[in-house]
Amino acid sequence: MASELPALYRLGIVGAGQIARMTHQAAVKLGITPRLFAEESDDSAALAAPDAVYAHPDSLAAFADTCEVLTFEHERLDIGLLRRLEEAGSMIRPGTKTIGAAFDKMHQRRVLLNRSFPVPIFAEVRGPDDLMDFASVFSWPVVLKSVRAGRDGEKGVWIVENENEAMAVISENHDRQLMVENYQPIVKELVVLVVRRPGGNARCYPVIEVIQSDGVYREVRMPASIGHRVAIEARDIATRIANELEAVGVLAVELFLTTDGLVVNELAARPHNAGHPTIEGCPTSQFENHVRAVLDLPLGATWASAPAAVTVNVIGGLDGVDPADYLHEALAVEGVHVHLYGKRPRAGRKLGHVTALGDDMEQARELAHRAEAALQGKRAW
Amino acid sequence: MASELPALYRLGIVGAGQIARMTHQAAVKLGITPRLFAEESDDSAALAAPDAVYAHPDSLAAFADTCEVLTFEHERLDIGLLRRLEEAGSMIRPGTKTIGAAFDKMHQRRVLLNRSFPVPIFAEVRGPDDLMDFASVFSWPVVLKSVRAGRDGEKGVWIVENENEAMAVISENHDRQLMVENYQPIVKELVVLVVRRPGGNARCYPVIEVIQSDGVYREVRMPASIGHRVAIEARDIATRIANELEAVGVLAVELFLTTDGLVVNELAARPHNAGHPTIEGCPTSQFENHVRAVLDLPLGATWASAPAAVTVNVIGGLDGVDPADYLHEALAVEGVHVHLYGKRPRAGRKLGHVTALGDDMEQARELAHRAEAALQGKRAW
Repeated sequence: MASELPALYRLGIVGAGQIARMTHQAAVKLGITPRLFAEESDDSAALAAPDAVYAHPDSLAAFADTCEVLTFEHERLDIGLLRRLEEAGSMIRPGTKTIGAAFDKMHQRRVLLNRSFPVPIFAEVRGPDDLMDFASVFSWPVVLKSVRAGRDGEKGVWIVENENEAMAVISENHDRQLMVENYQPIVKELVVLVVRRPGGNARCYPVIEVIQSDGVYREVRMPASIGHRVAIEARDIATRIANELEAVGVLAVELFLTTDGLVVNELAARPHNAGHPTIEGCPTSQFENHVRAVLDLPLGATWASAPAAVTVNVIGGLDGVDPADYLHEALAVEGVHVHLYGKRPRAGRKLGHVTALGDDMEQARELAHRAEAALQGKRAW
Repeated sequence: MASELPALYRLGIVGAGQIARMTHQAAVKLGITPRLFAEESDDSAALAAPDAVYAHPDSLAAFADTCEVLTFEHERLDIGLLRRLEEAGSMIRPGTKTIGAAFDKMHQRRVLLNRSFPVPIFAEVRGPDDLMDFASVFSWPVVLKSVRAGRDGEKGVWIVENENEAMAVISENHDRQLMVENYQPIVKELVVLVVRRPGGNARCYPVIEVIQSDGVYREVRMPASIGHRVAIEARDIATRIANELEAVGVLAVELFLTTDGLVVNELAARPHNAGHPTIEGCPTSQFENHVRAVLDLPLGATWASAPAAVTVNVIGGLDGVDPADYLHEALAVEGVHVHLYGKRPRAGRKLGHVTALGDDMEQARELAHRAEAALQGKRAW
């Protein structure tokens, strides 16, 4: 099918979840129809795109051959294969230098520490002794992390209060490489999205604040309610990391604002779930700017077009409610932008999001939560 | 393929040009993947949608059977067939009462005149005598029109200055039913988009002003530069026509502002080329509101989110330039929204559009024209 399509830019996206769906939409606006490397025929993006390949990870090399530029929406990748493709001349964007740092948290910490970026104190955990040594110096609680990105949406992060809890995590994750970090009370969780072209031209979006519960972003606010100085520092850190890693496309830098200042939490080398408010809240969404950047096209404006933008994620509940059944109720909330991903409902699954712009953060929050409650079949917020 | 897709709303769109492409995009945002009734596999919307049927017009009935709701992006329809489908219980939105008035201009004029809407003086042209009688009373020039919508994007409208010109048009169009209208000097061409739900709930977009050349909209400005009183009257006329025709979805009411006031020029019962500024310039685009309306979902806000929005259409030139080759140059114009439709370039073909928002109409015009010139491979405007 692909050969029939006009293909000035033959862009391939590895992954076909909602990030790919929204990236695909942004590309279509520019006259480009990306190919998707999907897993299942009911993957969110595959439902809305004409050109999806359902394939075994081994066939990624064959898929890459059909694309001029290859980009990614998830981290379930074989970095060794990507390096070989890159060496063979495939245009992998972002490149493996960036992806490697986003995937391997120990490697990432070492790179960032070497360049004097603020990171928590950390150590490798080769066995229980490493952990006990660390805890004896920095005291409990400590943060245990999987070095590689979590499995199946799970974060792979555990805050443990004592030796017993720590040993339980270690034994449950004996097949995974772990690391430990000192625990610092978090004042706010922030995300800075930087988008960067191959030549180094980069732009930052306004700093975003995320509110988690159960390890999932429930609510995202743009701009973050932080002081001007912290915002400048956060954007400066993120931009410098993007340059350091020679990132191409969106690099999402997750930061903790602690009582001791900013520290880098994690990196994601792709459009990010915290970036949904950029769709309606900025002149150019993170998705369109990701497409522009990986195709080395000029970047679009990234400023906030409203004083406040709030996104609330629509997460599948235990009751099995399908938000699509309540689209009517949600659209009745005036001024809210409703996005559904076409997925079958399942507890804990991201099924959509709603964004409200406002002159004031509380006004936007109220609207967004009201629409999300409606999609969950609940009347009031 | 369609049976595999989740289909809370099984929406079918007849036609697969750029209007269908943008309507499809708007539906995907809401979690809906419309089916398309396309003509060619390289139709603009078919390039970006997973579920397109390439079929002979005769198979429209079979297509309708696979959809819960059927809507349209063009006028090349068999109204008799649609009436039979409607009588057999198909949900045709807008219904044939609206479509009939949009398609048959004599019928439309009679309906509007009966309800005292302002229309030009008109008469049927069964032969040269009818025309000569009309011209002898109302004097030259007169406007000759094809009663049915033009063929292949051609407007089917001729301003004729004298008998010779008139006879030439009549003989060239001997296979078409013609009508004649008196010529009134046009101060401005306006378009009012009304979106209406089956129950009668309706909203108007800000009045849009269109600048034509060679019978094609070159530039579209929102809001129109007209007085408050004229704007209220234009929106009032459009809303009353939508109610009169029981329109569902977008009804585009084209109006002429003449030295004698407003007169209705034409109706289109679908999202309209003049409505492109609503994508970035209003909280809810005409495309999303069309989807909402035909599915009887609550309508979104239609106010202008910027003081000025200008769309310039990208029309294929005689030089065969492909705007996709100049995407880089166009995106370098900061603050412009570039839309390409994926079509192969051909002289006179609509290949895309660019929209710029501004604090001021001249600022927005300057940006939009600069980007359009860039897409045509020209440096300056």
